[in-house]
Amino acid sequence: MSAPLANDVFLRACLRQATEVTPVWLMRQAGRYLAEYRATRERAGSFMALATNPAFATEVTLQPLDRYALDAAILFSDILTVPDAMGLGLTFEAGEGPRFERPLRDEAAIRALQMPDLTRLRYVFDAVASIRRALAGRVPLIGFAGSPWTLACYMVEGAGSDDYRHVKALLYARPDLLHRVLAVNAQAVAAYLNAQIEAGAQAVMVFDSWGGVLAHDCFAPFSLDYTRQVLARLHREHDGRVVPRIVFTKGGGPWLEAIAACGADVVGLDWTVPLAQARQRVDDAVALQGNLDPAVLFAPPSVVSAQARAVLDDFGNPLRHDGRRGGHVFNLGHGISQHTPPEHVHALVEAVHAHSRWRIREGSP
Amino acid sequence: MSAPLANDVFLRACLRQATEVTPVWLMRQAGRYLAEYRATRERAGSFMALATNPAFATEVTLQPLDRYALDAAILFSDILTVPDAMGLGLTFEAGEGPRFERPLRDEAAIRALQMPDLTRLRYVFDAVASIRRALAGRVPLIGFAGSPWTLACYMVEGAGSDDYRHVKALLYARPDLLHRVLAVNAQAVAAYLNAQIEAGAQAVMVFDSWGGVLAHDCFAPFSLDYTRQVLARLHREHDGRVVPRIVFTKGGGPWLEAIAACGADVVGLDWTVPLAQARQRVDDAVALQGNLDPAVLFAPPSVVSAQARAVLDDFGNPLRHDGRRGGHVFNLGHGISQHTPPEHVHALVEAVHAHSRWRIREGSP
Repeated sequence: MSAPLANDVFLRACLRQATEVTPVWLMRQAGRYLAEYRATRERAGSFMALATNPAFATEVTLQPLDRYALDAAILFSDILTVPDAMGLGLTFEAGEGPRFERPLRDEAAIRALQMPDLTRLRYVFDAVASIRRALAGRVPLIGFAGSPWTLACYMVEGAGSDDYRHVKALLYARPDLLHRVLAVNAQAVAAYLNAQIEAGAQAVMVFDSWGGVLAHDCFAPFSLDYTRQVLARLHREHDGRVVPRIVFTKGGGPWLEAIAACGADVVGLDWTVPLAQARQRVDDAVALQGNLDPAVLFAPPSVVSAQARAVLDDFGNPLRHDGRRGGHVFNLGHGISQHTPPEHVHALVEAVHAHSRWRIREGSP
Repeated sequence: MSAPLANDVFLRACLRQATEVTPVWLMRQAGRYLAEYRATRERAGSFMALATNPAFATEVTLQPLDRYALDAAILFSDILTVPDAMGLGLTFEAGEGPRFERPLRDEAAIRALQMPDLTRLRYVFDAVASIRRALAGRVPLIGFAGSPWTLACYMVEGAGSDDYRHVKALLYARPDLLHRVLAVNAQAVAAYLNAQIEAGAQAVMVFDSWGGVLAHDCFAPFSLDYTRQVLARLHREHDGRVVPRIVFTKGGGPWLEAIAACGADVVGLDWTVPLAQARQRVDDAVALQGNLDPAVLFAPPSVVSAQARAVLDDFGNPLRHDGRRGGHVFNLGHGISQHTPPEHVHALVEAVHAHSRWRIREGSP
């Protein structure tokens, strides 16, 4: 039996329930901008050694929580663990980003692609369980995975890309083959997230980091439809509590209405979409997560605080005049930069809590 | 007196006048995907030697026109010629992209920034005149410049960037200094484009390549407002003919209505926005340019043709039922990739002309 949750404001906001404050966490909050992260990374020797060792993963997951009053923890891991377990051979070269030794570059490789043996990902589920024990109910733990399309981008390109030309050439020339990759990915991601939930993840997030590079008529068939398949297969509850699902599509603003209807409880937004407009477009049928430009954190703390307040004011009061309630989870519109001064994050978290507590208490519009 | 224009369908479409066919040209149509371009580039020795020599610039500008039935030529040059003329020291290292030796990294450098002496850009205006002579009226010549914001990105970062952290740090921490850079850039870009018009450019395009990285409340004050200043200062006519202005903001879909009201005749679109929806949003008050995903050109010619027809059908008939007329200039949603098979471009240009001629003749919806 796990410890009772001392702070469940994040879970309640995800489900559009009343909260006394707007919860805040930051994408990539356990990361290189923290000296203690860099020290652990140094001890581990490599990124993969860090990510595959539950003790190290637990240590770095908790580091930002020891510094800041964040309302959620997120599993320290990488979205590419799944294709790695499919046998593509993930490596991280210094300063190069991730790379697959065996990308999917021909029909034979795609036909051979199979669901991974989940025991190869046991280090992830062990990390989830270990982090839950270490958290001891302080805040909820978010599990995550890449979207089927975003994983396919890396699996076909073999690495990050400027133009996604290999995966897009496949899309336009051999959509049948790409659909096969996406179907396998959807099945794998669903199983992977369910295993995270069983291990203790109290919410799950799907990162569609590259959904925004698709043409308008390709986003639904090649990305959103497969994210929907993933969500449809997920456990809805665990340990007596609903497990909220967050979907974040970088550059997904044009398709917000469609994304909001894919089965997510929360839709993550980048900074190109005003929250007030987004609320109107989704009519508060889902909660929204976001959407401060991470570059704001380079500015002095007084500017950080003012910009955080502007995001909260843009969302407005979760409780509408007609009695319907929206939900807001404060976050950045993208991962925090490694160049962020850590003390600026204090100003951000404090401003979100102080200003939202005031707004909610005052019932201001 | 210049030769009469044999093919003015591009200029007419820009101004939403009747045409018998949809004109087509391609961003970066003179470029590395063409063997003849690579040969000229080899002879020139470097990109800068190519761009600064009017004879070479003329040669490569005309190369795609000799292969394909394109309806416009675009000056071969680079958007960074303007900051180079301001003294920032532009270099192109092999495989590295552009780099400034003296980026704007402190207040003193920004305070010292001045309008460039336009005589330092004479090679550009000489190229425009030389290209016009070589074209001899075959098709119109488009001149271009980077937007004030896009130039500022390079000027502050000193090179291309993933996160634009230096220029965004300046934006959030010292907006007064960034506004100074943008004001100088707006003045410089207007003078630069006017000189291109005087030298013979028959249309002008402003590339706001990085407008889409701005937060929703920053796009207007830091990018669009300065593009508007540029357009307001441009010659409206030259040689007895209106000079159409095209504005292209990569990732500008969220702000389409605002962009359409900035003084442009044509708004360029990337592939995330359906043309039919875009027409509705701007109510045909401007023409639209775009918006095929350049990755389509990696697919076989039959797919290229089908996708080109889909873009034309998405735009629909330029003449509306209420008698009002829209305008469509077919283009890609971004520059053509260096990896494009040149024979696929034939299929594209032929499909655009054949299908649009049929659509317009049939008056199909």
